[in-house]
Amino acid sequence: MASQKAWAVVIGVGPGTGASVARRFAKSYSVALLARKPENYEALVQEINNAGGKAIGVSTDASSAQSVKAAFDAINKARGTEPLAAAIFNVGGSFIRKPFLELSPEEFESGWEANGRGGFLFSQAVLPLLLDAVDKVEHPPTLIFTSATAGLKGSAHCASFAAGKFALRALYQSLAREFGPKGIHVAHAIIDGVIDIERTKHYKFDHPDAKISADAIADSYWHLHTQPRTTFTNEIDIRPYIEKW
Amino acid sequence: MASQKAWAVVIGVGPGTGASVARRFAKSYSVALLARKPENYEALVQEINNAGGKAIGVSTDASSAQSVKAAFDAINKARGTEPLAAAIFNVGGSFIRKPFLELSPEEFESGWEANGRGGFLFSQAVLPLLLDAVDKVEHPPTLIFTSATAGLKGSAHCASFAAGKFALRALYQSLAREFGPKGIHVAHAIIDGVIDIERTKHYKFDHPDAKISADAIADSYWHLHTQPRTTFTNEIDIRPYIEKW
Amino acid sequence: MASQKAWAVVIGVGPGTGASVARRFAKSYSVALLARKPENYEALVQEINNAGGKAIGVSTDASSAQSVKAAFDAINKARGTEPLAAAIFNVGGSFIRKPFLELSPEEFESGWEANGRGGFLFSQAVLPLLLDAVDKVEHPPTLIFTSATAGLKGSAHCASFAAGKFALRALYQSLAREFGPKGIHVAHAIIDGVIDIERTKHYKFDHPDAKISADAIADSYWHLHTQPRTTFTNEIDIRPYIEKW
Amino acid sequence: MASQKAWAVVIGVGPGTGASVARRFAKSYSVALLARKPENYEALVQEINNAGGKAIGVSTDASSAQSVKAAFDAINKARGTEPLAAAIFNVGGSFIRKPFLELSPEEFESGWEANGRGGFLFSQAVLPLLLDAVDKVEHPPTLIFTSATAGLKGSAHCASFAAGKFALRALYQSLAREFGPKGIHVAHAIIDGVIDIERTKHYKFDHPDAKISADAIADSYWHLHTQPRTTFTNEIDIRPYIEKW
Repeated sequence: MASQKAWAVVIGVGPGTGASVARRFAKSYSVALLARKPENYEALVQEINNAGGKAIGVSTDASSAQSVKAAFDAINKARGTEPLAAAIFNVGGSFIRKPFLELSPEEFESGWEANGRGGFLFSQAVLPLLLDAVDKVEHPPTLIFTSATAGLKGSAHCASFAAGKFALRALYQSLAREFGPKGIHVAHAIIDGVIDIERTKHYKFDHPDAKISADAIADSYWHLHTQPRTTFTNEIDIRPYIEKW
Repeated sequence: MASQKAWAVVIGVGPGTGASVARRFAKSYSVALLARKPENYEALVQEINNAGGKAIGVSTDASSAQSVKAAFDAINKARGTEPLAAAIFNVGGSFIRKPFLELSPEEFESGWEANGRGGFLFSQAVLPLLLDAVDKVEHPPTLIFTSATAGLKGSAHCASFAAGKFALRALYQSLAREFGPKGIHVAHAIIDGVIDIERTKHYKFDHPDAKISADAIADSYWHLHTQPRTTFTNEIDIRPYIEKW
Repeated sequence: MASQKAWAVVIGVGPGTGASVARRFAKSYSVALLARKPENYEALVQEINNAGGKAIGVSTDASSAQSVKAAFDAINKARGTEPLAAAIFNVGGSFIRKPFLELSPEEFESGWEANGRGGFLFSQAVLPLLLDAVDKVEHPPTLIFTSATAGLKGSAHCASFAAGKFALRALYQSLAREFGPKGIHVAHAIIDGVIDIERTKHYKFDHPDAKISADAIADSYWHLHTQPRTTFTNEIDIRPYIEKW
Repeated sequence: MASQKAWAVVIGVGPGTGASVARRFAKSYSVALLARKPENYEALVQEINNAGGKAIGVSTDASSAQSVKAAFDAINKARGTEPLAAAIFNVGGSFIRKPFLELSPEEFESGWEANGRGGFLFSQAVLPLLLDAVDKVEHPPTLIFTSATAGLKGSAHCASFAAGKFALRALYQSLAREFGPKGIHVAHAIIDGVIDIERTKHYKFDHPDAKISADAIADSYWHLHTQPRTTFTNEIDIRPYIEKW
């Protein structure tokens, strides 16, 4: 099996988890990097291509059916007959924290649009490709969803984000139970803590190593991808050693 | 305190839980019964009024902001200065069971519209009224959400309904944590089994009493409503004695 | 059915939940009150008997098979052929909070002895009696276990108590699934907060009503007991409105 | 750092997970293999030593304080000043499936003895050594507990095993929250399915690959061990792709 001829697609590429996952999977696969804003993937596409990998970037609005369809038209044109080995949903959506009675319907709906509808559109686009890749790729075709503590707990003032992440968790469970027996590895990662990126540089903690390494998340995603179908992990939590939980 | 001069509102009135809850709360309160189709509440409104209680019915589309607003305009006109003591969200939405790749975007979205958006619109309408009722009514003003097993577990072929019910559970948790300390009792009921109504008469079981009594659900909702704020239950499960779980 | 001729037994009677539950169930049943120290039930037995109810007290070490057997010999002698309608396990055990490496084996074991072994011995004593009471009493024969937040979450420095309460939760689930279909209502209550008793008088909070009312817990236990077998709740949480969770 | 000079200890070595974990960790560490019966580790010790690794075997009763102490005396003598990098608790205990009222006190207690008391004794023995290894070994010192579905769900007729595994989960959570901030990685693995070993050869399934690969479990344990302290996973589930959950 020539795994280097397979593809991975990452939607929600940004400076943290998305970029690290892209770099990690680009070691073995051609990668398609999707984000709304091209500045979120352009330098990374160039970096991977310069390093001898293969990457394309596609501007995509994860919550628009039309935009997701156009993105996969572009991906499918680029990959031709090469199978899709892995798909990572890393869309966060805007995190809105405000008293419930001050939420506009649009603000409340935004959590769903990014995670619920976004997760649905991405899953419907990638699952036929992943099913087609079973027996063509080295590891079980894999669909990983990035979530957050808000996927397990609805905190005060966070109804929009929590509703979206809970819906995403329902989606992952439903897909894991339907597509697992067909050989697809569907997994869900609860990231609980602050990712160590430029934007969080000013967050100060009493302990060293208090922020999550996006590269280490990517290593864990790669490990999930390499699990054989005899031995799937469906859900992991990830947090720094000092995080309260 | 003249609790008989307070109101309860039930959205999602149908032949099962909604009707039983309406009858139970109508023993102590005037009730506003909301459902999309008037045939779902008309006979019940008449029954309660004939029995010496007070009920109004309002045709409402729970997932339409405009419709919910119109319904509460009608309710507020009817109740005048009488406080709202309890609000029950009993919207199910259509239960769609089909392979994930056959779901249309509209079908997937429908679970959210009924439970996520519907829960949001109802909560934003009732919470200001419930807050206003604190110290005016005998029991802590109460907001109860009816959910299902799908609120805890995303099964194969049930992504739409599960996504909606998971989102509703996120909403309830977020509201309980924000409005509990303000004296509002926010609770969530996981109904796990078949309700004993006309439509389920043909469901046969090996055991007697295998279906849930909607009247007994109503008794449990009333019990939740009467808990003092020192002693709130936020989540209960309800299932027949023979149900596997 | 002459429900006043049936019995309830409460093990772990103390000044809080146990006493309130005893008083509540004594309104309908003769009650057997078990505690290690007679001073924990003596005044209460007298109070109930003086008020026209019927109560006996039995000094019992919940974690000793011999002691539990002797207690039920005494109870069975007192009740004769009158059925046992309800049994409440309210044993807490000593709450030990210390660094894990400072725990002695005896200290760690104590959480198990009170809750694991204690729960087992009590359940084996009451379940044959509850089974015998099916069809003889008004409400489904009921076995309720009192637990705590530590039954859901193992916190730092609390390994002993959490291990015992987790084990108790496993026991309740196993019993609910085995004896529910036989008509026994097995339920578990997560009490999350400070009970309002003499010993906690000095706990000060910013809010009024910040402590749990033991009488209101008893009302919820009674409500659980009165649920028909069509409509069982297996687990409830109970906490004051201001509690963080 | 010379990680090959560090040690790992595995308690509960048998033909499945224990042996695979031993082989996997023996690639990087000297290993101490503990089991009650020497036939469970003797061939494996020889295999590892023959292959150029280093292994010792110690006959140990995990639920006996004296036996565990003696085992660690032997381990400490063998390792001298070489640090302990990893400790794996893989004790199952006997799986008893029978109606609750037929359980003897000894049978019920056995689940606790293996998992609750066993987990406690092992943790108290290894945690001081793991704490001492912080900053001396390449990866964060790691303590992994093997659990089962029974750690999350108490099924009918399985009270003993479930009570033990629930207690073990309480222990892991308590330790993760206390020792995580000290740099120790405490993790818990829910193994949900049949392990593919000689003893399960006769279990037939409709699908291929229906049994869990013990070697793949070992790969996941090794992955957990290599996570940096910025990025710890505390709990994973592991099951074959066809398992219902």
